[in-house]
Amino acid sequence: MAPVLALVGATGAVGGVMIDIMDARRQFPWGEVRLIASARSAGRKMTVRGQELTVQALSPEAFDGVDIAMFDVPDEVSKEWAPIAAARGAVAVDNSGAFRMNPDVPLVVPEVNVAKIHDRPLGIIANPNCTTLSMMAAMGALHREFGLLELVVASYQAASGGGQAAIDRLYAELDAVHGKQVGVRAGDVREAVEAAGLPISDSPFPAPLAMNVVPFAGSLKDDGWTSEELKVRNESRKILGIPDLKVSATCVRVPVVTTHSVAVHAVFEHAVTVEAAHKVFAAQPSIVLVDDPAAMRFPTPADVVGEDPTYVGRVRQALDFPNTLDFFVCGDNLRKGAALNTYEIAEALVN
Amino acid sequence: MAPVLALVGATGAVGGVMIDIMDARRQFPWGEVRLIASARSAGRKMTVRGQELTVQALSPEAFDGVDIAMFDVPDEVSKEWAPIAAARGAVAVDNSGAFRMNPDVPLVVPEVNVAKIHDRPLGIIANPNCTTLSMMAAMGALHREFGLLELVVASYQAASGGGQAAIDRLYAELDAVHGKQVGVRAGDVREAVEAAGLPISDSPFPAPLAMNVVPFAGSLKDDGWTSEELKVRNESRKILGIPDLKVSATCVRVPVVTTHSVAVHAVFEHAVTVEAAHKVFAAQPSIVLVDDPAAMRFPTPADVVGEDPTYVGRVRQALDFPNTLDFFVCGDNLRKGAALNTYEIAEALVN
Repeated sequence: MAPVLALVGATGAVGGVMIDIMDARRQFPWGEVRLIASARSAGRKMTVRGQELTVQALSPEAFDGVDIAMFDVPDEVSKEWAPIAAARGAVAVDNSGAFRMNPDVPLVVPEVNVAKIHDRPLGIIANPNCTTLSMMAAMGALHREFGLLELVVASYQAASGGGQAAIDRLYAELDAVHGKQVGVRAGDVREAVEAAGLPISDSPFPAPLAMNVVPFAGSLKDDGWTSEELKVRNESRKILGIPDLKVSATCVRVPVVTTHSVAVHAVFEHAVTVEAAHKVFAAQPSIVLVDDPAAMRFPTPADVVGEDPTYVGRVRQALDFPNTLDFFVCGDNLRKGAALNTYEIAEALVN
Repeated sequence: MAPVLALVGATGAVGGVMIDIMDARRQFPWGEVRLIASARSAGRKMTVRGQELTVQALSPEAFDGVDIAMFDVPDEVSKEWAPIAAARGAVAVDNSGAFRMNPDVPLVVPEVNVAKIHDRPLGIIANPNCTTLSMMAAMGALHREFGLLELVVASYQAASGGGQAAIDRLYAELDAVHGKQVGVRAGDVREAVEAAGLPISDSPFPAPLAMNVVPFAGSLKDDGWTSEELKVRNESRKILGIPDLKVSATCVRVPVVTTHSVAVHAVFEHAVTVEAAHKVFAAQPSIVLVDDPAAMRFPTPADVVGEDPTYVGRVRQALDFPNTLDFFVCGDNLRKGAALNTYEIAEALVN
């Protein structure tokens, strides 16, 4: 019998992308797709592959007969409900932060460590954070070839990493500053945004994002590091299987709707050249190499949004560091960074 | 007799900021201020410290009697005219890229290496590139205390680094995308901008900048590096006096009008802590430390634009690299990054 797939969080920003991905899939191995959301959204009709489905309220019974349940919900909801889904016999593929660093939960990027899906004592598989995922296809491919030792990264993260409310906020702020020659005096962007009835205290971001960049994403952890920066470090180590990988990350929000970019400085064990790296990228089906700066060809988030692959460009051999590459990578944080990778894990489970 | 100061490029974006700085200066040691620009702008009236001045056309005679001539003009204009000014007896303080790496021209950031102004065999002193300058007060202070060895930086550069045309372009692109829910499909920002009669081929930027980031600034040099990235490396080495400083830079343009930001990963010879770095920053008059992430206090470019000091925050001790700090710095690229530092060099020459 064809397996049953549940999507928990069907009505969210990532849930919508998940349905787009299912609609576009050529092969579709699922017998039934079950849409699940909070009680507030239950009863809503949504169309998947031409079929109208009714969203069900989250309940233990909703998982009866489900083979794989993909979760895209807040950490605390996953924490409670992924084990319930697993207890009812489903494999939970979870895109929250609740289980990623749990040693009994594999953290999977199919191109990098698909074999780990079989080692899931809790019946739960975790999907990495979107910033980590944006660069992981590239890092996995390079690590296999050259042996990764150190990673210094700075991110250019899109608003939609914060969900639909964050997308709405960026558009509202862009409206608020429109037609005003702001960005020329300290605080004038903040004033224009607040004057439009958009106090920063109501924002998902801790500062104005329109015509600005905000060097803080996630929540504050020990010693001044943010949750987002620690996720990049700890999840990269776990996915790549390099427990002592040296990582420093600075995570910065930029006024882009969707698609995270990362400036990467990566030090390897073995000698590496731009040509050798190009070969590695070109051989990876989930990577598109756009690296011809003489023709002004390099990835930018506005040209990558909505695309499945990771885009890589500006590959340079470091001038002063041995065995080191600097490059720039763009990945749609809602697709490979969230919905697509989760769905690819589900696909890997049935294949 | 009070010295005579000339401003060459008085009608440009940096020239305007230069006049703002002169207007606001408490002490003003100059006897005469002479405004100089291209023949096209000659005859224009501009007010400096309440006095109406007529812009003079660039000519050898325009430098007669001038003690210090500040240049903010394109490289090729500086290359021709700074030596002419010097031959007429002026000290040329040049903000172009024409002389920065010339071994007979000092490259000066007053907080870091002011003594170098006396060693000017060609009568020319160079002002660093705006991206380098944005972080140099901070790097100089840290280097004196801890001994800088390595620098990995990623920039978030404002449009105005490209001059007035670049500022106008960003506002025009923001107009073009306004009210459209773009940034959701590959290329939709590009299409909206081009549909508004703003072809990318006419832009100072090689890709749309509104709702995007562009990982390319300056021109293409050897091995995939940009002029901007090489300036950060080579000028940092020269200013700090560390010829073998290891540097990797990735320079990225962001949709901010003015104020460059830089994510810095700096490795030192000696042990360093966040507390020790805070002390160093707090002791430097040209640095404002804004580093209380628990209260969501950190620098952002929209809160720093128009300010003279360099703002530093998000200071963290690297978790995996010894003697290493990660931090975020914002500096107004038209002020400290251009006009202010040039003017401070002129002031140092008369003091």
